[in-house]
Amino acid sequence: MDIFEKCRNYTQAREAMESGSYPYFIPLDENEGTEVEYKGQRLIMCGSNNYLGLTTHPKVKEAAQQAISRYGTSCTGSRFLNGTLAMHEQLERELADFVGKEEALIFSTGMQVNLGTISALISRDDVVILDKDDHASIVDGARLGYGKIERFRHNDVEHLERVLKSLPENVGKLIVVDGVFSMGGDLADLPAIYPIAQKYGARIMVDDAHGMGVTGRGRGTAAQFGMTDQVDLIMSTFSKSFASLGGFVAGDDEVIHFVKHNARSLIFSASIPAANAAAALAALHVIREEPELADRVNQIGKRISDELRGMGFNVGNSVTPIVPVIIGDDERTFLTWKRLFENGVFVNPVVSPAVPQGMQLLRTSYMASHTDSQMDQVLDTFKKVGKEVGII
Amino acid sequence: MDIFEKCRNYTQAREAMESGSYPYFIPLDENEGTEVEYKGQRLIMCGSNNYLGLTTHPKVKEAAQQAISRYGTSCTGSRFLNGTLAMHEQLERELADFVGKEEALIFSTGMQVNLGTISALISRDDVVILDKDDHASIVDGARLGYGKIERFRHNDVEHLERVLKSLPENVGKLIVVDGVFSMGGDLADLPAIYPIAQKYGARIMVDDAHGMGVTGRGRGTAAQFGMTDQVDLIMSTFSKSFASLGGFVAGDDEVIHFVKHNARSLIFSASIPAANAAAALAALHVIREEPELADRVNQIGKRISDELRGMGFNVGNSVTPIVPVIIGDDERTFLTWKRLFENGVFVNPVVSPAVPQGMQLLRTSYMASHTDSQMDQVLDTFKKVGKEVGII
Repeated sequence: MDIFEKCRNYTQAREAMESGSYPYFIPLDENEGTEVEYKGQRLIMCGSNNYLGLTTHPKVKEAAQQAISRYGTSCTGSRFLNGTLAMHEQLERELADFVGKEEALIFSTGMQVNLGTISALISRDDVVILDKDDHASIVDGARLGYGKIERFRHNDVEHLERVLKSLPENVGKLIVVDGVFSMGGDLADLPAIYPIAQKYGARIMVDDAHGMGVTGRGRGTAAQFGMTDQVDLIMSTFSKSFASLGGFVAGDDEVIHFVKHNARSLIFSASIPAANAAAALAALHVIREEPELADRVNQIGKRISDELRGMGFNVGNSVTPIVPVIIGDDERTFLTWKRLFENGVFVNPVVSPAVPQGMQLLRTSYMASHTDSQMDQVLDTFKKVGKEVGII
Repeated sequence: MDIFEKCRNYTQAREAMESGSYPYFIPLDENEGTEVEYKGQRLIMCGSNNYLGLTTHPKVKEAAQQAISRYGTSCTGSRFLNGTLAMHEQLERELADFVGKEEALIFSTGMQVNLGTISALISRDDVVILDKDDHASIVDGARLGYGKIERFRHNDVEHLERVLKSLPENVGKLIVVDGVFSMGGDLADLPAIYPIAQKYGARIMVDDAHGMGVTGRGRGTAAQFGMTDQVDLIMSTFSKSFASLGGFVAGDDEVIHFVKHNARSLIFSASIPAANAAAALAALHVIREEPELADRVNQIGKRISDELRGMGFNVGNSVTPIVPVIIGDDERTFLTWKRLFENGVFVNPVVSPAVPQGMQLLRTSYMASHTDSQMDQVLDTFKKVGKEVGII
């Protein structure tokens, strides 16, 4: 039996391509922020994670370019060996300070933060407890650990308590949740999770990939709840509000020190180049100094949620600039995506297995740099297309 | 039991720090290529993977800076959704052409290539067969698959055959080997592996992270053996000879198409920013147009191997610019590292578990941009320090 037989049998994507409703890997010719270009057509970008619009901020671009001049384009080695620059350490210090933790540690991607941190902490006798809507990288990090994986229903703290109650008292326990859930735009119920974690001796890690820069006036979801000290580990990525590539985890000194010497995805992967570190650092400075950017993007998100809901769309429980439009079947999801695209609005269709059957949705997300008139146009387009395809 | 107890109990690194022989995470103030600066001291860099010295090549730096001007500093989304630029596709086409395969696919890191590609291909009834010296990311990719993992002794094709013989005929089989082994600097014995793979119906994947740019006049280890068509999948990283961050896998269209739609580390991770793609593309052009760079670094590697061996050092079976100096115990490895560092030579100490007990070594690696007089100085320093610590 040929191990590649599964490749020859995989026809789903080819069929979608042939039917003209293939929505993935769309090559954009330009990416100027709130608008993008595809084959000469301008689209309003409502499907990026560039929440604060900093990827094109002059200070961020200039910092990255200067770093290339000084340090070149790659570190060609892991942080562990030859790939640590003084700038990596500066970024770590400023990140730790920003999120209110003792230490921070940079990885090459946000995914690798979760892979390395979770797998290093979860030994054979430990249990990691995940929200069912947690990001794929959390699940894979848990799988790379040697302990047991348990799950609880999305944001269902009663279910979480039943899971914790069923575990032996003398095993180590780590609860990992998204701060802002990437598909629903809702928040982890940290105020309800914390007392339960305390009761059963579990630690809490928050993946704030979509929260950092956006919630808590930019300082993230733990900060928004005033629970920085109650959350043990905070991680985030640089490829969203931080306008770069990479990610970090922050926590107590002894925990970060341990992760630093035991996370395989840190030790066996090249560090981020100086330009990527410099972009994240410059973005951090903007986020820190201009909390009104977070205010602005949240205000846009609230307007879109309210108005789409008012038109009759199902936008779930979003309280952030991630606004899902729940449609519930594949065909109409792709059709709506396609009609929006043709009408100049870029959103992302999300189907099973990324969301459960019946929850197929268009993920829309907004940027502080979007103008009110762009949002008028987006709302008008949604109204027109929604009626046309019969979902409102 | 607190899951963080293992962190409080971890003292090994602190002890090394206190004894003054902690060799990891050294923050460099500058990185100009063949020399680096640490606390005002200049060191000759013999521990980077910048084999062709392209991280500071004017064309590579300029391409990265221009990409930032045009596209900003981040794609803020995965290739799958909003993170594909036309430039990513151009790089994929040129890479596929360069390595002689139909298609190529870019991931955010070399590690994530292995995680995503191997785990996507290895289903429940499949078997992945690894060389015991394979890179950690291959092992983790295999662990993320749902099939069985088998290993064979380093480059021991008789052992490989025994392993293959023991497997059921009707299961899918994938052999994954490093092209150039990262610690030993030796090559996978592809001419011997291929007929055995054929005999047992196994496919072959080569991780050429350390080969691409260096072996086969820059085109990698499969090319060096004239076996491009016999190797099914070729992967490499951008964080070594390609002077960037990221990685790619190349193979037949149907296999890459399948991986593109099934690799979690591709779908759930942000794509590399335009600057990183542009740096890799510019580096590819230099590698393609100046094969004399590969000749030069191999010539340096050969000189160092020959001369160190002549002095009485154990340099193993290296045939590349990676030259291990095998010392065999922790204490003398760290001592030799420290004395070399104090004498202005940067190398990397490697101890268990990265190498087996008794194989503790200093990993040295060279760059096409190293000068002969730098190499004279390195050899003199090795001679002096080797005698001083009693290993020659």
